[in-house]
Amino acid sequence: MKIYDISVTLSQDIPVWPGDPAFVRERVNKIENGDDNNTSRIEMSVHTGTHVDAPYHFLAEGKGVDQLSLKLLTGRVYVLYLPGVKLITANLLQNSEIPPRTRRILIKTDNSELWAKKTPEFYTDFAAITSDAAEYLVQRGVKLIGIDYLSIAPYHQGRPTHETLLKAGVIIIEGLNLYDVEQGRYMLFCLPLKLQGSDGAPARAVLIGV
Amino acid sequence: MKIYDISVTLSQDIPVWPGDPAFVRERVNKIENGDDNNTSRIEMSVHTGTHVDAPYHFLAEGKGVDQLSLKLLTGRVYVLYLPGVKLITANLLQNSEIPPRTRRILIKTDNSELWAKKTPEFYTDFAAITSDAAEYLVQRGVKLIGIDYLSIAPYHQGRPTHETLLKAGVIIIEGLNLYDVEQGRYMLFCLPLKLQGSDGAPARAVLIGV
Repeated sequence: MKIYDISVTLSQDIPVWPGDPAFVRERVNKIENGDDNNTSRIEMSVHTGTHVDAPYHFLAEGKGVDQLSLKLLTGRVYVLYLPGVKLITANLLQNSEIPPRTRRILIKTDNSELWAKKTPEFYTDFAAITSDAAEYLVQRGVKLIGIDYLSIAPYHQGRPTHETLLKAGVIIIEGLNLYDVEQGRYMLFCLPLKLQGSDGAPARAVLIGV
Repeated sequence: MKIYDISVTLSQDIPVWPGDPAFVRERVNKIENGDDNNTSRIEMSVHTGTHVDAPYHFLAEGKGVDQLSLKLLTGRVYVLYLPGVKLITANLLQNSEIPPRTRRILIKTDNSELWAKKTPEFYTDFAAITSDAAEYLVQRGVKLIGIDYLSIAPYHQGRPTHETLLKAGVIIIEGLNLYDVEQGRYMLFCLPLKLQGSDGAPARAVLIGV
């Protein structure tokens, strides 16, 4: 049983969405200062690194991340590899080979190279999903979609794609690192922190080879 | 396939270790204020709620939480129920029915009632594991141990139990809520945030019925 860690490492070098607070970890107890133990505190936007968006992120009356279904966040998933693409459109997805009855899909793009290279700057020209592609996935019955940079939607058109997916109850995972994963079928375990009523939560996500 | 969420909900009402920073979530973007979306930031001790301790928590040269084995954090686990007990000793464990070759064990105690009742105050008289019990588990070949309050060790004797386990490479999970889980065998998925070099990390943990 091979386990693939598809989460990005959280450190001070991680890029964050422009305007969002930076990631900070600092020790409040230090053994070298005579404390009994090392203890850290963290502060971060809940949309930092590998994370899950809840409906409340874009819908004023939407559900919080603690109410998302663990049955959707875990289970069979298809990883689709789309190299050399910036705008993932409905047409492009129609012409890709997504297996029938796919309920969970993670899209690997050139974005994953940004994580592999540990690029510290936020990159605005990332590959993302258009709103018509979001509509197509909803129509196909997809219930969970993941992408390998910090938004499922193009940088300057955030709301349409998010709104289409979140209104349809589709779980969105962003900030995945799929660099070491090949196209194909896996088992997904994506476990976001259980933040009461939150618009999102950082998560650890793994794939298991099947 | 039944999934049990054994993680506690993170909100401003959660008790934290005395002296540790409180849990905070606040929105930095608000739809009702005309922002495009809701976005929250969080701040917390990494030992808040359901979390994993890394060796670096008590060992100055110990590994960080991002280096813990996902193969240990996921897999077969035994939930042992020990009601009416405060000090879990080696003798008590010897007389309990832990199955042979158990590598992962979660101990359910009366502590779980504190989570079920949503007790907001930190409770110092929680059930915990003595250092001789820790030594016994290491000798048995246990590689992961979980408990249902905020420390694996008694309140006033933190270091010996932690040190015994962490030096032996045993992963410690604390702050589990096992209230709805019966004694028996399950599959565990405990996924801590991938915090570079950290002494610990908040985690989401689930059990799957087998």
